Amino acid sequence: LNIFAPYGIVKDVAVKTPGYDEPVRQRSLRTHNLALVLRHVAASPAPISRAAVAAATGLTRATVSSIVEELLAGQLIVEVDPPPRAGAGRPGVGLALADHGPAGLGLEINVDYLAACVVDLTGRVRHRRIRRAQQRGRTPGDVLDDLIELAAATSADAVAGGHTIAGIGLAVPGLVADGVLRLAPNLDWHEVDIRDQLLTRAPRAGLAVDPATVTIDNEANLAALGELDADAGPDRRAASFLYVSGEIGVGAGIVVDGDLMRGRRGFAGEFGHVTIRPDGARCHCGARGCLEAYASQEAILRNAGVDPADPGGPVARVVALAQAGSTTALVALEEAGAAIGVAAATVVNLIDVDTIVLGGVYAPLAPWLTAPIGRELADRVLAARWAPVAVRPSVLGASATVIGAAGWAVRRVRETPSTWLAHASLTPA
Amino acid sequence: LNIFAPYGIVKDVAVKTPGYDEPVRQRSLRTHNLALVLRHVAASPAPISRAAVAAATGLTRATVSSIVEELLAGQLIVEVDPPPRAGAGRPGVGLALADHGPAGLGLEINVDYLAACVVDLTGRVRHRRIRRAQQRGRTPGDVLDDLIELAAATSADAVAGGHTIAGIGLAVPGLVADGVLRLAPNLDWHEVDIRDQLLTRAPRAGLAVDPATVTIDNEANLAALGELDADAGPDRRAASFLYVSGEIGVGAGIVVDGDLMRGRRGFAGEFGHVTIRPDGARCHCGARGCLEAYASQEAILRNAGVDPADPGGPVARVVALAQAGSTTALVALEEAGAAIGVAAATVVNLIDVDTIVLGGVYAPLAPWLTAPIGRELADRVLAARWAPVAVRPSVLGASATVIGAAGWAVRRVRETPSTWLAHASLTPA
Repeated sequence: LNIFAPYGIVKDVAVKTPGYDEPVRQRSLRTHNLALVLRHVAASPAPISRAAVAAATGLTRATVSSIVEELLAGQLIVEVDPPPRAGAGRPGVGLALADHGPAGLGLEINVDYLAACVVDLTGRVRHRRIRRAQQRGRTPGDVLDDLIELAAATSADAVAGGHTIAGIGLAVPGLVADGVLRLAPNLDWHEVDIRDQLLTRAPRAGLAVDPATVTIDNEANLAALGELDADAGPDRRAASFLYVSGEIGVGAGIVVDGDLMRGRRGFAGEFGHVTIRPDGARCHCGARGCLEAYASQEAILRNAGVDPADPGGPVARVVALAQAGSTTALVALEEAGAAIGVAAATVVNLIDVDTIVLGGVYAPLAPWLTAPIGRELADRVLAARWAPVAVRPSVLGASATVIGAAGWAVRRVRETPSTWLAHASLTPA
Repeated sequence: LNIFAPYGIVKDVAVKTPGYDEPVRQRSLRTHNLALVLRHVAASPAPISRAAVAAATGLTRATVSSIVEELLAGQLIVEVDPPPRAGAGRPGVGLALADHGPAGLGLEINVDYLAACVVDLTGRVRHRRIRRAQQRGRTPGDVLDDLIELAAATSADAVAGGHTIAGIGLAVPGLVADGVLRLAPNLDWHEVDIRDQLLTRAPRAGLAVDPATVTIDNEANLAALGELDADAGPDRRAASFLYVSGEIGVGAGIVVDGDLMRGRRGFAGEFGHVTIRPDGARCHCGARGCLEAYASQEAILRNAGVDPADPGGPVARVVALAQAGSTTALVALEEAGAAIGVAAATVVNLIDVDTIVLGGVYAPLAPWLTAPIGRELADRVLAARWAPVAVRPSVLGASATVIGAAGWAVRRVRETPSTWLAHASLTPA
């Protein structure tokens, strides 16, 4: 067993097996143990000593020390002074996740804004930039030119602050497969090779991009992953929720057993196109009676009589009207909530999630949406009596998508630190 | 490594890890290798020699021989004469799954019939009994008394034919949690401790039941598992389908990545209660506009003008009318198909399965349901262009549920043969 020698015997081998019929192959124990130690440091609520890591993981102290040196050198963890302690004995130096060092860059293209943000290894948002402007009617190339400018500025902020960009997540409002944006109904974009276009432009932002560190995904999927990171309890695998993303379009990320459900071809979560009324209003997608036609931001603004170009922000205007007791606004929100509730009840009947998370523009509108959604769930979910469903706003609010996009890159480093250690950062020194 | 000695080194260790953060513990290699060899014998399209099993699994010949002896003694496999072969060399004796020996007993309670069947280890149905009678309005105790009588007769058939009952699956038309039938809307049953009631009565059928070998599950779930067993291609994990179960009620089993999706509390798959029209017809469940109100067997018979008590079987009567070109029947089927299609499109938009399987009474009606379902899918699935969805009748037809229930018990023996080898059969010698 010479290949394992440097790190001794591993007692706690967490292997993600690909499936029932596939063999567990010999994996690099170093790769495994780096991730294992980093996970224990990350999960510890307070700085944790090398000895405590050894006890918790079953690794020898020598192994832990050797791995810790690698993680320190890679700026993944830092040593923290021990807290003063009563009694005899010198407390060990504590280890904690580094809040400088590798960070994730999140990018978002949406119909009425572009956004970028940087999230450090601890999950803290360090920099954010947003550019509000109508993107409908523009070409993908023009939009990506603007986005990369925003990315360059945000990345420069990060480098100035002592971070290095370890990966990029790009969120787009549409169907994505193999890095191609098949369809973005509200941008009227079709078959855009968005991944190639991003990779081509990345050097302009000072990002020497390794394609393996870049993902392109649906905005609601990334927002749901951001929510999962931000709000999962001690048992992440117990998380099961429908994250509803209200933007110009309506999407969703569906989390089951602590993981995003992507579907056979990666197109799961098209909540906005759940049929509410088979012969109802025409949707941008061409079908009739989709939820999006009744509960999108546009529908709410129209029904509430609010100008989408309202200078103070149209959603803030709806909130102000509802707070002031405007019947028109309250009815518009009640109707949107009932429509979301009908579709959410269908999700619960089909998938049995225990929580509905209201994200995007639905987060600030949650005080008025929650009651009608809850009412439809109570009326329509067959198992409602035995399996109650909670409705709550997203903890990340309207920024969940871009934070979730950056979080993808952070999670990649945290789950496979060996990859980070082997590669240079994306930002040249 | 003494504990591994009897079976040598295992190269192909298929471990079902419980999850990302849990350790892979030392498992009994005997348990593992028994299942591994049985799986290879089962997967082989023709009888397979011990040498070929050794080559395929990476186990030593001595290990394979030792395991094969155990499997032969437990009646899980049989030796088969080798086919005549040209050329020199004596061909090895072939091994195949036993078609006598352990078998699964499937039981089904439905609104208008009770059923039982026995499936052998190869998946072949050996015995079937059905008792058509209205169960609505009867008590669970009375129904279980009748069911156990049917089970006794079917089990006696099996014993007479040289089989031993290794386990029981019971399918019920409602919400099941922890062995309790929470709700069967079409039987108007509530909170029935169906598992206890079955276990109490089992000895009457000559079944000395080990509770671990008994499952109670929703009828559509078991039917979907039956369909998966019967129709999965070489890569079972690639299977993703919505199995729609048309009975008095409408249910579904949703298979994703080759496994049944059960949901957070086990209540997933309530396809019959997907909302089709929010202000529509009242459903048995109390809500308005559920699919079941538009596409159940009752709705189709009513719209087609067929008496549910038709002596030749009401569904056969609908088929005859449709074949004869009856406009009333054709319109009824068209409307039911459109309603199923609207709900199926919602499932595809949310979960991205690639196939809709029409089961139960929908199987014989498939020639008339497929077109309207396909039309709604084409119109309403956002990713339809990139991710086409097939619609087809169940390969098991109306018997999928009771066969799937027996199949649960068969699968249990095939996946964990050590459990079978350690326990006696349920049928006393």
